[in-house]
Amino acid sequence: MLKDLDHLMSARGIGAVIVPMHEQLHASFRWLTRGAKVTRGYAIKLVDREPLLVSYPMEREEASATGLETRLASEFGSEQIFRDAPSPAAGYAQLYDAILSDVGAEGSVAFFGNVPFQLYHGVAHELEARGRVVHRSNGEDLIQLARKRKDRWEIDAIRSVGERTELVVDRVREVLRAATIDGDRLLYEGRALTLGDLKQLVSSEITRNGMIEDHDTILSQGRDAGIPHSRGDASAIVRPSVPIVLDIFPLDRASGYFFDETRTFCVGPIPDELRTIHSHVLEAFERARDAMRAGNRASLYQELVCDLFEHRGYETTRRNPATLSGYVHSLGHGVGLEIHEKPSFSLSPANSDLIEPGDVLTIEPGLYFPERELGVRIEETFVVRDDGTVESLCRSSCALEP
Amino acid sequence: MLKDLDHLMSARGIGAVIVPMHEQLHASFRWLTRGAKVTRGYAIKLVDREPLLVSYPMEREEASATGLETRLASEFGSEQIFRDAPSPAAGYAQLYDAILSDVGAEGSVAFFGNVPFQLYHGVAHELEARGRVVHRSNGEDLIQLARKRKDRWEIDAIRSVGERTELVVDRVREVLRAATIDGDRLLYEGRALTLGDLKQLVSSEITRNGMIEDHDTILSQGRDAGIPHSRGDASAIVRPSVPIVLDIFPLDRASGYFFDETRTFCVGPIPDELRTIHSHVLEAFERARDAMRAGNRASLYQELVCDLFEHRGYETTRRNPATLSGYVHSLGHGVGLEIHEKPSFSLSPANSDLIEPGDVLTIEPGLYFPERELGVRIEETFVVRDDGTVESLCRSSCALEP
Repeated sequence: MLKDLDHLMSARGIGAVIVPMHEQLHASFRWLTRGAKVTRGYAIKLVDREPLLVSYPMEREEASATGLETRLASEFGSEQIFRDAPSPAAGYAQLYDAILSDVGAEGSVAFFGNVPFQLYHGVAHELEARGRVVHRSNGEDLIQLARKRKDRWEIDAIRSVGERTELVVDRVREVLRAATIDGDRLLYEGRALTLGDLKQLVSSEITRNGMIEDHDTILSQGRDAGIPHSRGDASAIVRPSVPIVLDIFPLDRASGYFFDETRTFCVGPIPDELRTIHSHVLEAFERARDAMRAGNRASLYQELVCDLFEHRGYETTRRNPATLSGYVHSLGHGVGLEIHEKPSFSLSPANSDLIEPGDVLTIEPGLYFPERELGVRIEETFVVRDDGTVESLCRSSCALEP
Repeated sequence: MLKDLDHLMSARGIGAVIVPMHEQLHASFRWLTRGAKVTRGYAIKLVDREPLLVSYPMEREEASATGLETRLASEFGSEQIFRDAPSPAAGYAQLYDAILSDVGAEGSVAFFGNVPFQLYHGVAHELEARGRVVHRSNGEDLIQLARKRKDRWEIDAIRSVGERTELVVDRVREVLRAATIDGDRLLYEGRALTLGDLKQLVSSEITRNGMIEDHDTILSQGRDAGIPHSRGDASAIVRPSVPIVLDIFPLDRASGYFFDETRTFCVGPIPDELRTIHSHVLEAFERARDAMRAGNRASLYQELVCDLFEHRGYETTRRNPATLSGYVHSLGHGVGLEIHEKPSFSLSPANSDLIEPGDVLTIEPGLYFPERELGVRIEETFVVRDDGTVESLCRSSCALEP
């Protein structure tokens, strides 16, 4: 929430935040400019003021469509500045200095966002040479912190992506249900069904529903399902009686908000061992979901799930950081304009993130045994309600049967 | 080319280049790691050595699939480091220090890439406190410079994206050819055809052909076609006898390489004024294409096209930087893992980019008259051959008739 940014800036004595964007869109720029469809621009935020968007003539319409106050870089003398500047870094420093003076910024200035480091390292240095105080953080990202609690319209946007994501998952279910078993492989419409076929279906359904598959969907089976981030082998023929992990995280083309959901399927007879593991993952999922309350640290729920899995006899990275078997990752993460946001569920002592109303986050326990060709993960995206409990934005079954 | 990076590092006395990636993939990391499908990792490059990729256990398979030497962050003590570090910036500085010592890096270290500024600003400071010399550039990006000249396999990848992009353009042509004119609007399959219908077709065809529509395709008509970066109004019904600009720039899902192509269409009777403007744009396009030779400055061709358009009586931003009518942008840009790469065609005195064999670039003159509801642009992606001439990677007609 923008008002969180005001508080964070005030508390740190930061007078102005600058979030630049050079060709590569990043979440902080998108958030501060309300999704401005420009290829280059600079968002300037003073405490208790709406952001100002500085852009270029060719994109003046896209800039003003944001509803923000907009100015052209040329109004601050950009053409002359870059013509005369000894280096790009010196040029940008002079431009920002001019903008800051014009808008009456006082106090230190802080840069945030994923920006070309070699350029902004120089810009910070040149701004200091011009007498500006440049805020050097220890790694803390105020924009990321302010993006944690979502506004109502952001939650609505994520809910909409969730509804469309479920439609894509439905299509995969339909194909798996319609498939027939032929020995060690699945047939669909008379021919061998590959993971690549399912991936192609997922890609086209994501697009058809107005979303973007920014990262490759995880669609893996057997041993690959036992490695959490394995994308899966597209040429592999889908097999019966092995776990098939579908982890899908599209973003909305219009709003840029992500959604994240994982289902583990098994077609045909389900091995007892897989059935058991799945029931333990589902137990952990439901326990974390039912226990989660605003006001608690997120890491508390990672502890809860580690306790549960260890009690059940599984290895965890809490007890053995080197293990590749058992429960080997974090319980979840925030979701928004990035697929991994605050809060963090990490057990690191540095992590004190709280669950707060307005957070949108995933709960996604899993158990992995690559050596036994087994892996199960269940994941849904939740919103933390004003009453402190969580509400799932998914509607479909968590069962192994597709 | 990687060998260009070796030369650039040597010439600047840089012993090690570090390209980090935290969740948001960027072109420099993709290039240096050969498209590693990891969500976090650090690429380390010493002079005359292959890059080293440092990653995390969950993504060890994706890391090793690159064929690069890979190590886990934990081998350098990352767990202990981040447990004990007073801040993320201090932790990363210690981790990089450990990696650099381990691989025997000498001399200064330079960071490149689009990375979280507030974190790396601190990392640079902490590394300096540890006695390392951190290279501060004036904005020069050595990875971007090294990415300029493409290897054979990169050109093949871009050629392949180009062939599939043409298939998408073909589909738009088919719909426009099949449409019928009903007064001031086009009908397709019995109902009014909107720009949104065409955009949806483009999106689904891009996906179906294994590509990603990372930025919204430009599909605009009339007045919006007269504003180069206007995305167009999706709800607008396509009209006869006005220019329809289709500027499409997908990237390949597998390789990450972009392609860029623009066509301007007109359905039905073509107004004389539009016909004339189009012929002048085509003339500029062909003149630039035929004249282009390796060894010359790219800006020479921007001058050539400005000369031509001014001779024809049009305004240009060379003569009048504030103009919004006439020829208002650069002649083209390099294309690769980013849609806008080196060489730059800018007339800025700071731009001395040369056309070189192995460059992949666009030529895209245009003329814009928003007040007259007119805009025409023609764009193709070219490779600069070893003989110094350019070869188009497009095959389709530049005519106004779809």
